[in-house]
Amino acid sequence: MITRDRLALNTATLGANLGQGAGWSPERTVDACAARGFGGIVFWRQELKGRAQAIGEYARAAGLRVDGLCRTPYLTGPDASTDDELAASLDEAAALGAPVLTIVTGGTEPGTTGLEDSRKRLADRLRPACARAEAQGVRLALEPLNPMFGGNRTVIFTVADAVELAEACHPALAIAVDVYHVWWDRTLAPACARAGDRIAGLHLCDWLRDTSDILLDRGMMGDGVADIPAIRRAVEAAGYTGPCEVEIFSRDWWSRDPGDVLDTILDHLPEC
Amino acid sequence: MITRDRLALNTATLGANLGQGAGWSPERTVDACAARGFGGIVFWRQELKGRAQAIGEYARAAGLRVDGLCRTPYLTGPDASTDDELAASLDEAAALGAPVLTIVTGGTEPGTTGLEDSRKRLADRLRPACARAEAQGVRLALEPLNPMFGGNRTVIFTVADAVELAEACHPALAIAVDVYHVWWDRTLAPACARAGDRIAGLHLCDWLRDTSDILLDRGMMGDGVADIPAIRRAVEAAGYTGPCEVEIFSRDWWSRDPGDVLDTILDHLPEC
Repeated sequence: MITRDRLALNTATLGANLGQGAGWSPERTVDACAARGFGGIVFWRQELKGRAQAIGEYARAAGLRVDGLCRTPYLTGPDASTDDELAASLDEAAALGAPVLTIVTGGTEPGTTGLEDSRKRLADRLRPACARAEAQGVRLALEPLNPMFGGNRTVIFTVADAVELAEACHPALAIAVDVYHVWWDRTLAPACARAGDRIAGLHLCDWLRDTSDILLDRGMMGDGVADIPAIRRAVEAAGYTGPCEVEIFSRDWWSRDPGDVLDTILDHLPEC
Repeated sequence: MITRDRLALNTATLGANLGQGAGWSPERTVDACAARGFGGIVFWRQELKGRAQAIGEYARAAGLRVDGLCRTPYLTGPDASTDDELAASLDEAAALGAPVLTIVTGGTEPGTTGLEDSRKRLADRLRPACARAEAQGVRLALEPLNPMFGGNRTVIFTVADAVELAEACHPALAIAVDVYHVWWDRTLAPACARAGDRIAGLHLCDWLRDTSDILLDRGMMGDGVADIPAIRRAVEAAGYTGPCEVEIFSRDWWSRDPGDVLDTILDHLPEC
């Protein structure tokens, strides 16, 4: 069971990152989380709108930790960002006071097949970015995505993939573990053990038995088939004691009252 | 490069398994494959309609191998079959003269989370089924599916998962390796080496960069981002010299003339 103090809301759960849901402002979301005893909050760049520092200060003044920011632009693939765009995402995390900036890598490099060339490009871009992040007090955290997001969104699919790349890349490169992406992976526990203190995030949701949409049909904890407590134990056995961040991309949950969604999260904590 | 003699058509590529595409009969498909020098063919139970033996004889008389039959009913999950339904699928493979019957396991067992309970149930059902299959001259072949099919379709996601289950289950339990499902897996080559002569199938298609539908948007070999030759080398290094079966579930390819689809497959063989 997770204590409320460890619990963080990722604002994607209310649709804030995609302009979906009730459209609550960052401040209104902060107030609603603080009123319910959430320990932290994780924002998306899209909702900061140049006010990163002010929103970070507002959250801390309300008694919440800012636990992270989502996310870097793509680093590989045909839609890869420039180095300046990557630096801008780090500057925004630093202004917000977010200790972690999540990385979604982007897809396969143009003109290549398989993953080797893309992972090499990824490591080459992350080395200087990790050094810059370290100087800013931000950790970059690689998030492995479910293999269904291969091709155009990621070249890192498992915690084992992430650890291997991180070890070859930079001592400060961290890893975020998301239930939705890794629940099926039999190698998760040993990979977490090897990751050790690189683990910088645990993202909670559930994998619904009949997932109807690969992007926007994540489940509330306990409504699906993932063994969430086993995943939590795997990261905790590796030494992780940090925030547990609820991140549910779901048209279903976005259609509900945000206050009810937050209450439901609290009701479902025993499932974690 | 794959020789035409090793090449087999899985009839799903023409939509036959789902009543899609041009609706060619098994015999017409056999004739079109034989005319183009394909070595073999793999059928789906739905198209046999009680004529398994006659269709098998027709294919062999036309000079084609019957390389397999798709597939067992689900063995786990809420939609799991009875033992009689499983036995009927084996009887049909034997009547067809198919040396391999593919297994799609089915989803997570009701009332459970994670995969351990489901895999135990799967092994318990497969042990007697493998013995029965062996007596009928048929090999049951576990097909790992992409993790996006977790929940309701499979509890086996990687060749490593399949090998571990097979070793704990029955010496005759085989494994089918499908490019679409495994292209992303960094552990594929060592898992194939461990599988050795359990590998009883190599299924060809491609993973399109922007996969628009998780079920029905597979790509023609060379049109996507999978490193198909590397996957073929991994199974061949394990000793596999058997058929290479083109299986492309795709609304796009089903909308085209089946003869053109078969010609395109031949044109794309250098991509394999």
